[in-house]
Amino acid sequence: MITTNPFEDRDGDKLREECGIFGVLGARDAAAMTALGLHALQHRGQEAVGITSFDGQEFYSRRGIGHVAQNFSSGQAIAELPGMMAAGHVRYSTTGGSGLRNVQPLFADLASGGFAIAHNGNISNAMFLKRDLVQKGAIFQSTSDTEVIIHLVATSRYPTLLDRFVDALRLVEGAYSLICMTPEGMIACRDPLGIRPLVMGKLGDAVVFASESVALDVVGADMVREVEAGELIQVALDGSIQSHRPFGETPQRPCIFEHVYFSRPDSVLGGRSVYEVRKAIGMQLALENPADADLVIPVPDSGVPAALGYAQQSGIPFELGIIRSHYVGRTFIQPSDGARNADVKRKHNANRALVAGKRIVLIDDSIVRGTTSLKIVQMMREAGAREVHFRVASPPTEHSCFYGVDTPERSKLLAARMDIAAMAEFIQADSLAFVSIDGLYRAVGEAQRSSACPQYCDACFTGDYPTRLTDFGDRSPGCSPVKLKTKPAKVA
Amino acid sequence: MITTNPFEDRDGDKLREECGIFGVLGARDAAAMTALGLHALQHRGQEAVGITSFDGQEFYSRRGIGHVAQNFSSGQAIAELPGMMAAGHVRYSTTGGSGLRNVQPLFADLASGGFAIAHNGNISNAMFLKRDLVQKGAIFQSTSDTEVIIHLVATSRYPTLLDRFVDALRLVEGAYSLICMTPEGMIACRDPLGIRPLVMGKLGDAVVFASESVALDVVGADMVREVEAGELIQVALDGSIQSHRPFGETPQRPCIFEHVYFSRPDSVLGGRSVYEVRKAIGMQLALENPADADLVIPVPDSGVPAALGYAQQSGIPFELGIIRSHYVGRTFIQPSDGARNADVKRKHNANRALVAGKRIVLIDDSIVRGTTSLKIVQMMREAGAREVHFRVASPPTEHSCFYGVDTPERSKLLAARMDIAAMAEFIQADSLAFVSIDGLYRAVGEAQRSSACPQYCDACFTGDYPTRLTDFGDRSPGCSPVKLKTKPAKVA
Amino acid sequence: MITTNPFEDRDGDKLREECGIFGVLGARDAAAMTALGLHALQHRGQEAVGITSFDGQEFYSRRGIGHVAQNFSSGQAIAELPGMMAAGHVRYSTTGGSGLRNVQPLFADLASGGFAIAHNGNISNAMFLKRDLVQKGAIFQSTSDTEVIIHLVATSRYPTLLDRFVDALRLVEGAYSLICMTPEGMIACRDPLGIRPLVMGKLGDAVVFASESVALDVVGADMVREVEAGELIQVALDGSIQSHRPFGETPQRPCIFEHVYFSRPDSVLGGRSVYEVRKAIGMQLALENPADADLVIPVPDSGVPAALGYAQQSGIPFELGIIRSHYVGRTFIQPSDGARNADVKRKHNANRALVAGKRIVLIDDSIVRGTTSLKIVQMMREAGAREVHFRVASPPTEHSCFYGVDTPERSKLLAARMDIAAMAEFIQADSLAFVSIDGLYRAVGEAQRSSACPQYCDACFTGDYPTRLTDFGDRSPGCSPVKLKTKPAKVA
Amino acid sequence: MITTNPFEDRDGDKLREECGIFGVLGARDAAAMTALGLHALQHRGQEAVGITSFDGQEFYSRRGIGHVAQNFSSGQAIAELPGMMAAGHVRYSTTGGSGLRNVQPLFADLASGGFAIAHNGNISNAMFLKRDLVQKGAIFQSTSDTEVIIHLVATSRYPTLLDRFVDALRLVEGAYSLICMTPEGMIACRDPLGIRPLVMGKLGDAVVFASESVALDVVGADMVREVEAGELIQVALDGSIQSHRPFGETPQRPCIFEHVYFSRPDSVLGGRSVYEVRKAIGMQLALENPADADLVIPVPDSGVPAALGYAQQSGIPFELGIIRSHYVGRTFIQPSDGARNADVKRKHNANRALVAGKRIVLIDDSIVRGTTSLKIVQMMREAGAREVHFRVASPPTEHSCFYGVDTPERSKLLAARMDIAAMAEFIQADSLAFVSIDGLYRAVGEAQRSSACPQYCDACFTGDYPTRLTDFGDRSPGCSPVKLKTKPAKVA
Repeated sequence: MITTNPFEDRDGDKLREECGIFGVLGARDAAAMTALGLHALQHRGQEAVGITSFDGQEFYSRRGIGHVAQNFSSGQAIAELPGMMAAGHVRYSTTGGSGLRNVQPLFADLASGGFAIAHNGNISNAMFLKRDLVQKGAIFQSTSDTEVIIHLVATSRYPTLLDRFVDALRLVEGAYSLICMTPEGMIACRDPLGIRPLVMGKLGDAVVFASESVALDVVGADMVREVEAGELIQVALDGSIQSHRPFGETPQRPCIFEHVYFSRPDSVLGGRSVYEVRKAIGMQLALENPADADLVIPVPDSGVPAALGYAQQSGIPFELGIIRSHYVGRTFIQPSDGARNADVKRKHNANRALVAGKRIVLIDDSIVRGTTSLKIVQMMREAGAREVHFRVASPPTEHSCFYGVDTPERSKLLAARMDIAAMAEFIQADSLAFVSIDGLYRAVGEAQRSSACPQYCDACFTGDYPTRLTDFGDRSPGCSPVKLKTKPAKVA
Repeated sequence: MITTNPFEDRDGDKLREECGIFGVLGARDAAAMTALGLHALQHRGQEAVGITSFDGQEFYSRRGIGHVAQNFSSGQAIAELPGMMAAGHVRYSTTGGSGLRNVQPLFADLASGGFAIAHNGNISNAMFLKRDLVQKGAIFQSTSDTEVIIHLVATSRYPTLLDRFVDALRLVEGAYSLICMTPEGMIACRDPLGIRPLVMGKLGDAVVFASESVALDVVGADMVREVEAGELIQVALDGSIQSHRPFGETPQRPCIFEHVYFSRPDSVLGGRSVYEVRKAIGMQLALENPADADLVIPVPDSGVPAALGYAQQSGIPFELGIIRSHYVGRTFIQPSDGARNADVKRKHNANRALVAGKRIVLIDDSIVRGTTSLKIVQMMREAGAREVHFRVASPPTEHSCFYGVDTPERSKLLAARMDIAAMAEFIQADSLAFVSIDGLYRAVGEAQRSSACPQYCDACFTGDYPTRLTDFGDRSPGCSPVKLKTKPAKVA
Repeated sequence: MITTNPFEDRDGDKLREECGIFGVLGARDAAAMTALGLHALQHRGQEAVGITSFDGQEFYSRRGIGHVAQNFSSGQAIAELPGMMAAGHVRYSTTGGSGLRNVQPLFADLASGGFAIAHNGNISNAMFLKRDLVQKGAIFQSTSDTEVIIHLVATSRYPTLLDRFVDALRLVEGAYSLICMTPEGMIACRDPLGIRPLVMGKLGDAVVFASESVALDVVGADMVREVEAGELIQVALDGSIQSHRPFGETPQRPCIFEHVYFSRPDSVLGGRSVYEVRKAIGMQLALENPADADLVIPVPDSGVPAALGYAQQSGIPFELGIIRSHYVGRTFIQPSDGARNADVKRKHNANRALVAGKRIVLIDDSIVRGTTSLKIVQMMREAGAREVHFRVASPPTEHSCFYGVDTPERSKLLAARMDIAAMAEFIQADSLAFVSIDGLYRAVGEAQRSSACPQYCDACFTGDYPTRLTDFGDRSPGCSPVKLKTKPAKVA
Repeated sequence: MITTNPFEDRDGDKLREECGIFGVLGARDAAAMTALGLHALQHRGQEAVGITSFDGQEFYSRRGIGHVAQNFSSGQAIAELPGMMAAGHVRYSTTGGSGLRNVQPLFADLASGGFAIAHNGNISNAMFLKRDLVQKGAIFQSTSDTEVIIHLVATSRYPTLLDRFVDALRLVEGAYSLICMTPEGMIACRDPLGIRPLVMGKLGDAVVFASESVALDVVGADMVREVEAGELIQVALDGSIQSHRPFGETPQRPCIFEHVYFSRPDSVLGGRSVYEVRKAIGMQLALENPADADLVIPVPDSGVPAALGYAQQSGIPFELGIIRSHYVGRTFIQPSDGARNADVKRKHNANRALVAGKRIVLIDDSIVRGTTSLKIVQMMREAGAREVHFRVASPPTEHSCFYGVDTPERSKLLAARMDIAAMAEFIQADSLAFVSIDGLYRAVGEAQRSSACPQYCDACFTGDYPTRLTDFGDRSPGCSPVKLKTKPAKVA
């Protein structure tokens, strides 16, 4: 029980999470469909999973540590979750034995009845709000920022649940895509800037919400549209749908890194195929940073689409020079520093016969700490590569994210510590280049980045934070972008 | 998530529990000592156990389903609970997978800091208070009546934690012995009537509290005295002790059934050896209800002291005519009806060679549903007993307990359904007799029961409930005893 | 995999085991009945349990670590064991993770079909035989001495299974009560001296075998008789029974310690009630070794019958001065040295109010290492006893058992290290006395011990071993008793 | 206990397994290195894993159900396996609760000392040999064909272990690559035809054996050479190496399907890069079976190299039209029929934005039952593909394998049931074509298949079995190829 600093995590790496959410109303097998949908979103969070369902009378909940398949593949697990409405959550990172407390959906018995909530994002004034709520007698069950929303709803003076919910959201700053359930139905909403994604689909009479369109595909639903930035969609138990705009019209600023890495390539985001955008980034990269080489080799698997784009643009053959084992998770999303550095070899093996004696271009989606990149370059050299050129399908990652993405502290980001020449030396590449920020914007279909009013949240590349960051020492108005120069204050 | 009836339990048998609590402040191995103390109180609750400790900075907690030895015997388990202050709880009856939520000590982060609470007893207006708290925005984590106290403390307007705690207790009715921990130290208290027991001990500089004196013996502590009815004892981290009397002077009415059955025979309760009291009850029983027989046979193990008393008073030899297997728990405390009836034979076996052809007097501590008694009489007859006389070391149990004891609904109590002659026929005994209520009072050292102001809570025998029972349909003032005639309303 | 010394156990304490066996043929719920029967024999072995059944076509087997109730109480466990014939085994002591290999019944597919065997006792030339079998190409699955019998059967040249089985037993020396199953039926037998017990019962058309009569009682079977020393009883699937005497007529020498401690008091052994024999030992003890005292106090629970006998003979009142917790196993049978010494206090608590200021006689069944006795005497003194006299219901235990009883090495037996005066000093008793060997024989109904041809195996008291002990360095003919003076050679 | 048919498996699908083996002698962390090596071979068997080590004195063993990472990633697991020699095994398919008996390495205490064996392949006269061994008194522990070898060694009359081992192998027919451990060192060998692979490597002074070269890469060892067909390599504890040829010179016939599918693309097999061979197959396929299409799309992941070859040869762009989830195992290797058909959608999702309106060529490595192919074609059509052409990088799979590969019964192989036109219709492709058998041989570097003396075992394509198949009804001499026309007799 961490009494003083409820949101803090021991090793500072786990506070901010990336999550996936899914909800369905009006389906006979709501919980089974939710499990399938969450499975399709498994790449967004692999450490814990929860599903809550409602059968018209009661709410049922089941949570577990690990993957969806480990916790929700059995008929028995699904049978514990009856009803035609269900919502679920996959989560990156919980700690220790008491971790189940933090697994979402969170649930509470309010005076108005049960209330369940699944959240993707991060509330950047949660600590501030929590301190005030506890002062007034609120008792928190979890160390999750999401619970703040529940207590704000519970203590709001407005008469209807919807009013209370909007009242709560008005106090909250940061990034959130939410799926909530009440005895009256489902509520889905996105924060005013629409930082984290959320889409709506239809499957027969059922309404479905999901973090990404791939989850709709997998459950067999048709995409309707994205939930808009600042939109709140209410679906009644009878299936009737109402859209609200509690914050008025707001300019959207969705996370651009979803296109670079987070989302699955078979998702469609902001009207564009993620796969095509990644190929386009690779093409931009080839135009901006050509290389004189024999082979284009992707760092598997996330580098593959950009590598295909690079190869098609440059005419250099695309080949699998690194073979990835199927029996491990992907690099970026492993929790501890040790695990991140250790097992590269166990996960990626050089295709020696192919690489030996060749000049190669390695394509990766991003560089965070640089330690994996170094190991991969070394592996290629040990396998006999004559030259190793490194090309990165995103600009240098220089800043931490406070909107629900697990990034290391700034001091551990390679690009925050050195310039490109030094980075090239660090990872031992013969050359290193990144796509430009404007090149990235071109790949997503913009002419260029608008510095006055950027079309995306690209704070991790630029440091332009689009909201206030109260818990992190910032009190500036949310309208003008925030530039944080220093390592963020330890959340307490 | 049972949203409508949080305290209700599916089979109606598990709501009201008997528990044991233990706390220590000032000991180097506070958690290890607490585990040992709880082990000595294991007979008071066998389904779940929890320990919370405080190391001067943070609170640590560990809970488990099952016995103390299963959960707290490993060095690793104890190492998770550092600090010189700890408190724990054994509990009879939790349900299902989410049961850990209800395992005590309960903990909350209040504005004043951490607050842990372990409770033996039952709050008889918990539902009433909870409804009001939820209306005001409180969010409950558990379905335990104890959590009401935490929320009352959290929302009290008084400035100090002690004031808030007393403010909370003033709203509460029913039975409670409590051990609480705050960053300032430990608080132990008993309800104004002192219905459930609580003793204080010393071990070097450490202060110890426990439900029964036997726990002091086992950890090597010396008994100081009982916490008095209506007393609140505050122990600061430096060991300084203050006694408070927030309810003024109150006449005490401790549970007389602790002497009959609940407490261990090697405990000292109200200044008397439980073993000696039980022998004295057996002697009263022999005086009031002699039997012409060859052998006095205890129903093991709880009937043994009374049987020794009966044998010494009557001069009939004491013999072990029923052999109890070591590999099962005691009869009374098994949760489901099925288990209670089924396994008598597996648990108790007739000592045929001894019993065959003899006239025997069976001595048991009480009769609840009568089904076990019937099976034991039948077993004696099958083993060849010529006559079977049944003597019971308590008056007929006619009424449910609402103060933290798991009793069946009235309609299932044998003595509520028939008179003694019919009961004798039901259990197939040649004769049946109970000690009188005045005989019982004599055994505990009173001249007789004072009907104006009974010295003990004996509601299970007499129906005289000493407090209001708001959740159970009663609104009478607490001062005059309550007589509930009907089956208690289903708690919702 | 301990390749060189298959029977050796790391701490030398676990090689020799005490077990319980049960078998039934002709019952609809053979496996369920076996589970119940084994539960009644749980005191004979608490570390592992197995049941094998046969449904006319195939054998089914299930094994587990721990108690019968932990492994065989579920309907699912029983459903895995179909058929009308079943046999099972409870076992004291297996080691480590691979321990399940040693859990009985052992099973093998022989050329003649399946063969299952459950064994109580110890083969004293198992190492010798095993060495020879391995030399000829046999591959052992377990480190159990019992497996030797299976390999001897498998490699015997005789035509019928019965002949092969007898052929195998002729090569074997030591103690064995066996229940075997083949596709033709069940075989039960005892070694020529009948060292370990085995009884036969009937329940309707079903035939039942068990280590003790109490198991017949619990399953509702009637006792028929004991399997005789050197007798082999064959029961065909149709229920027809044949008795064989493969070793001719042999003088029996059953273990006398079964009367002192191993068997349950409600069993009948050699025609005598174990309870009555223990009371008679207590009476002998009182006659031989009176004490001037106020109270007779049993060391619970095994000392109770002897204490009742001592109290009745001496006229000193019997009282429970030590209260035993229900939540631990009995002292003697815990595996590691540490566990044996440590938790006395947690298991037995002084009834202070009773003992304070009194002169007491403690009655225990035996003294092995003396460490527990010392702790109990100390506990009585700490509780205020004025004088503590210790009386033991068996002669001094001076010698190790090689017939299936877990005894420490001789050097750890208190009585092998010092005389009675020194022992009294060691355990800090005011006086100490043991029943004489002739007193013990009188209690079991003999006039005295026949030194020429003792009626019982009493080697643990006298050192007169009734068989050869090949693996332990002895090559003397089995007919004249063996006197081993030295610590037995480490079995390898 | 399945007494009559020890090798049979209930659903007939699990008898014949594909496995991976790894061994090392002379490494300080032999067990840890073995775990890492087995992890690199995880694709060869995912259901169970075991490692046995030897520390110069004793053998240690640990087995588990599931992946290597689940069982051998903890320091504790490795610490249980001390010593500088270790060998391990991953296995596809064990059954039920008792499955651990079948997990390899198998171990036995022979007269000569401990003997551990890990086996990849299948003994095609194991049933025949077992029947004889049991008749002579052998007792089998497992239902594995491998145990036959141990018993043959144990009962051989030859003086040295090596002689006994060769004596045993002479009686055995079928496919085997073996790694054995004795107290003297390690023995690795391949059957006379070298059907299953085995390579030897060096890491400093340590000698390493593994099923595939990728395992050498991952542990950091250098490849020395393949163990030759019919070769037996003996490595003494001091590291000295001897090669034996107990069967004289034999023509080799390694499994060609290793190139098509089993081996990892980053392995080198028979001197050729598996990746390059697969690309070459794709090129052959493009030459033999062109298609008029817009995109070449691999069925992930095993179809990728052939698709790259096809794309490079044909000039049609290579694109990822199917996105494979990382959170499931690969199709071929899931045990039950249900699992194979069910979850296609959950595992592979169409990249709609790419595929819609296009004419596509799908490239897969093989077609077994065809049900997955059908689902993939349907998925492409649902995603809007205009034409779907299917090209397969191996000839039609018409025959079962009896050499350690899990294939369905012939009657379930699509190519055994219909011609190519019917297959195309079945999978609903616009066109379907397979590479020719000679095209396949060209891709592995041969001019063509020698029908007189085929250079590879290609029985699954041709029905030419290179050995006798005694247990499957065949008694023909091993020298001339066996042609089995009928469904193989159920092994009993």
